[in-house]
Amino acid sequence: MSPTDVTPETLLSDSGSLSSQIGPLLAVCSTLNQDRPLEVVLDDLLRELRRMVRADAGAVYLVEGDQLRFVCTQSDSHPEMVQSPKISRSLNPVFTDRRIPIAGKALAAYVAREGKALAVVDVYEPSPDGAYQFDRSVDEACGYRTRSMLVLPIGVSGERPVGVIQAINHTGDPGTCPIPGTEPSPFPDQALHTGEALASMATIVVRNAQLRTQVQRMHLETIFRLATAAEFRDNDTGAHIQRVSMYCEAVAQSLGLPQSKCQDLLFAAPMHDVGKLGIADAILTKAGPLTPEEREAMKKHTNIGGEILHGSDNSVIRTAETIALTHHEKWDGSGYPSGLKGADIPIEGRICAVADVFDALTSKRSYKSAFTLEKAFAIIQKDSGTHFDPEVVAAFLRCRDVIESIQDLYTEPGGAGETH
Amino acid sequence: MSPTDVTPETLLSDSGSLSSQIGPLLAVCSTLNQDRPLEVVLDDLLRELRRMVRADAGAVYLVEGDQLRFVCTQSDSHPEMVQSPKISRSLNPVFTDRRIPIAGKALAAYVAREGKALAVVDVYEPSPDGAYQFDRSVDEACGYRTRSMLVLPIGVSGERPVGVIQAINHTGDPGTCPIPGTEPSPFPDQALHTGEALASMATIVVRNAQLRTQVQRMHLETIFRLATAAEFRDNDTGAHIQRVSMYCEAVAQSLGLPQSKCQDLLFAAPMHDVGKLGIADAILTKAGPLTPEEREAMKKHTNIGGEILHGSDNSVIRTAETIALTHHEKWDGSGYPSGLKGADIPIEGRICAVADVFDALTSKRSYKSAFTLEKAFAIIQKDSGTHFDPEVVAAFLRCRDVIESIQDLYTEPGGAGETH
Repeated sequence: MSPTDVTPETLLSDSGSLSSQIGPLLAVCSTLNQDRPLEVVLDDLLRELRRMVRADAGAVYLVEGDQLRFVCTQSDSHPEMVQSPKISRSLNPVFTDRRIPIAGKALAAYVAREGKALAVVDVYEPSPDGAYQFDRSVDEACGYRTRSMLVLPIGVSGERPVGVIQAINHTGDPGTCPIPGTEPSPFPDQALHTGEALASMATIVVRNAQLRTQVQRMHLETIFRLATAAEFRDNDTGAHIQRVSMYCEAVAQSLGLPQSKCQDLLFAAPMHDVGKLGIADAILTKAGPLTPEEREAMKKHTNIGGEILHGSDNSVIRTAETIALTHHEKWDGSGYPSGLKGADIPIEGRICAVADVFDALTSKRSYKSAFTLEKAFAIIQKDSGTHFDPEVVAAFLRCRDVIESIQDLYTEPGGAGETH
Repeated sequence: MSPTDVTPETLLSDSGSLSSQIGPLLAVCSTLNQDRPLEVVLDDLLRELRRMVRADAGAVYLVEGDQLRFVCTQSDSHPEMVQSPKISRSLNPVFTDRRIPIAGKALAAYVAREGKALAVVDVYEPSPDGAYQFDRSVDEACGYRTRSMLVLPIGVSGERPVGVIQAINHTGDPGTCPIPGTEPSPFPDQALHTGEALASMATIVVRNAQLRTQVQRMHLETIFRLATAAEFRDNDTGAHIQRVSMYCEAVAQSLGLPQSKCQDLLFAAPMHDVGKLGIADAILTKAGPLTPEEREAMKKHTNIGGEILHGSDNSVIRTAETIALTHHEKWDGSGYPSGLKGADIPIEGRICAVADVFDALTSKRSYKSAFTLEKAFAIIQKDSGTHFDPEVVAAFLRCRDVIESIQDLYTEPGGAGETH
C-alpha cells in the first residue's frame, strides 16, 4: 500500500497497536540528554529495532560531511562484534576507523545518497544494477557471514538523511543465533516498513542532538572569547584558558564524575580568573615583584570573581563562582582567600588548582621559561597532599596521555605551552 | 489489546501503514528549530492529530510548574476560536490568560495529573466518579458546544506528562463542520489509540525544545555575566548591558528581521563594549574630561573589541564582532572608527547605535542626570538621518511600548535607567 492509498479509515483500522509499537521506541528517544549522548541513545534504538524486526545483528552510521561515521554494532550470535559507545575504550579500530564515503559503493552509502530503504536477501549476491556492493572486510575480520539486511535511512522523506541504520540477518525467534550451517531468512516486507518508520523517528533524536551540540559549542566559544578578553590586560592568551578548561574536564572524567558535571567544569573553568578585572592596572601589569600589600590586593581577584559570578541558578555559572573563589585554596589549609582545608574545598576548586598550576608550570612567563612536561608532572606529584588533593593528583596522573595531547594541541608557536 | 499482549508478530502484521501514519507527524516534528519555536510546531501537530482522528476542534496546553499554560486552539467550524502562535497579536485573552491549576477539576488537569488518555462522549455530562468537570466558560464566550473529546497526555508512560493535547468533537468527514442541530459523534476507540501514539511522539519535541531553551538561557546568562564583568572597571552595571541587548532584539523584531537574526542580536549586543578591556585605567576611569589624545585612545575600544571577537564561524560571535566595530559609526559618515556611511554600516551596528545612545540618554551618569523617556525619544528622532538610520529609528519608535517596558523592568533603584 503506498502512502497515497492511505485514508483516515485505513489508518485508524490498525492503530490499536500503533501506540504499543512506538511506545518502547519513544521511551528510548526521550532519554536523550546530557548524560545520555546521541551515540548511546542510537545504540539503544538499534537494540529496539533489532528486537522488532528480529535481526541477529545491526549497525548505525551518522552522516558527517561527505562521509558516514561509524557509531555502533551489535550482534546476538557474535558478541565479539559488539561495539558500544557505552564502553568507549573497547572500540575495535576495525569498526571505529570506518569512514564510508557517501559517494562510494557501500550499501549504507547508497542508502544515505538515495534516502530510500533497502531490503537485501543476500548481500554477497551482486546488486541488480551494480548500484552498490557489500564490503566483506568486517565479516572477514570477525568470522561473520552477513546475509539478509535492511538498510534504512535515518531521515524524513524529501530531505537528505542524517544517518543510516542496518538490521542484519533475520532470525526465526528473537534472541536465537542462526544455527550454524543454516541460512538466516530474508526480512519480510512488514519488517521493512516497521524499520523505515523506526528509522525515521530516529531523525528527530539525531537532529535535536546536533542542534543542541551546535548551541553548546557556541556557548563554549563565547565563554572562551570573553574569558580571554577578561584577561586582556594580563597578556594571557586564549590557549591558557582553553588548556586549563580541558585539563579540568579530563581530570573530572578521570575521577568518574557524571558527564554533566564534567561539562560544567569545561564551561566554567575559563572564568577562574575573571576577578582580575577588578584589579588595578598598576598591580596587575607591574613589571617587578609585588610588595606585600600589592600581593594581598592581588589575592582579592578570587573574591571579586566570586562576586561577579554570585547568585546564579544555572549550573555553569554556579560552578564558575565556586572555581573563582576556591582555586587558590590548598589541601593543607595554607591557601587563600579562606584557608579552607581538605574536603572543605569544593572538588571543582581542587581540580582547577591542579590544572591551573600545571599549566603555569608548562608555560613560559616573562620571569621564567617553560618547564618540561616531565618536571611539571613531578612537581604536581610532589605537592600531592600539601598543595593538592591526593585523589585529584592521582586522577590527573591516570589521564596523563589526555593531558599531554591537550597540551600538544593547544600550544602557541614558540615553545611548550608558551604564553605571551 | 494491552501492550503486554503484543508480540512481534502482531506488531509486524499491521506495520504496512505504520510509516505512512507517522510520516506526516514526523515531518512536522522535524521542523522544530530556531525559526519554528515549540508553540508553532505544536500548532501544526494539533492540526495533524485533528486530521487523523477527525476532530472539528482542538487545543494544546503545556505544563509549567503546577499549572497548564495555554498554547493554541483550532476549530474548522468556528474560525473565531482559532488562536495560533503564528499570529501572536490575534490572541484573545479568553484563551491566553488561561492557566489551569493541575491540582484542579479541569479535564486537562486530570489528564496531566493521571498521565492517562481520556475519551469523553459528552463533556457536559458529569464524570462517572466526579473526578473532573468541564469548564464551559470558553464555550460560552465563543458560542461553541464542546461535546466529544479526546484528552491526551503529552508524555512517555511512567513519567509526568509535559503537556496535554485535546481533540474536540468527532466529525463524520474531515473538514466538514458538524451540521447545526446534529450532534458530533463520539471518537472511536481507534482514534483514542492513534491520538495517544501521536501525543506521546510530541513528547520528544517538547522535551528537546525545553532542553534547548535551557541551554540557550545558560548561554545568555553567561554572556550577561561576562560582559558585565568586562565593564567592571567602567562601573557600568549589568542592567545597562541587559537593556541595550533587549532594545536591539526589539528593534530587530520591529524591522521584521528573521527570528534567528533577532536572537543573534540579543546574544551579541552585550559584548558591544568588550574592547574597553584594552583601554588603560588612566583613561577609562579618568574623572575629568579627556584630552584629544585620550579621546582618540578611547575610540580604539571599537577596534580592540573587533580584534577580540575576530574570526569566529559562529553567528553570535560574528554578530558581536560587527557590533563592537560599528556601533559608533554614524549614518552621515561622521562616526568612528572607519567613518562608514549609510547602508555601508552593517544593520547590526545601526541598530546598536540607537539602543546604546537611547540607554545613555535615559541613564544617570556622574556628569548628568537621566533624561525623561519623552526627551530621549525626541533626541533619537531628531538625529534620524544624521546620526541614525531613519528606518531603524522608525522601527525603534514603532516598538516604543516594548522599549518602555524593557526600560521599566530593568531599572536599578534610584531613578529611570540610572547606572551607578
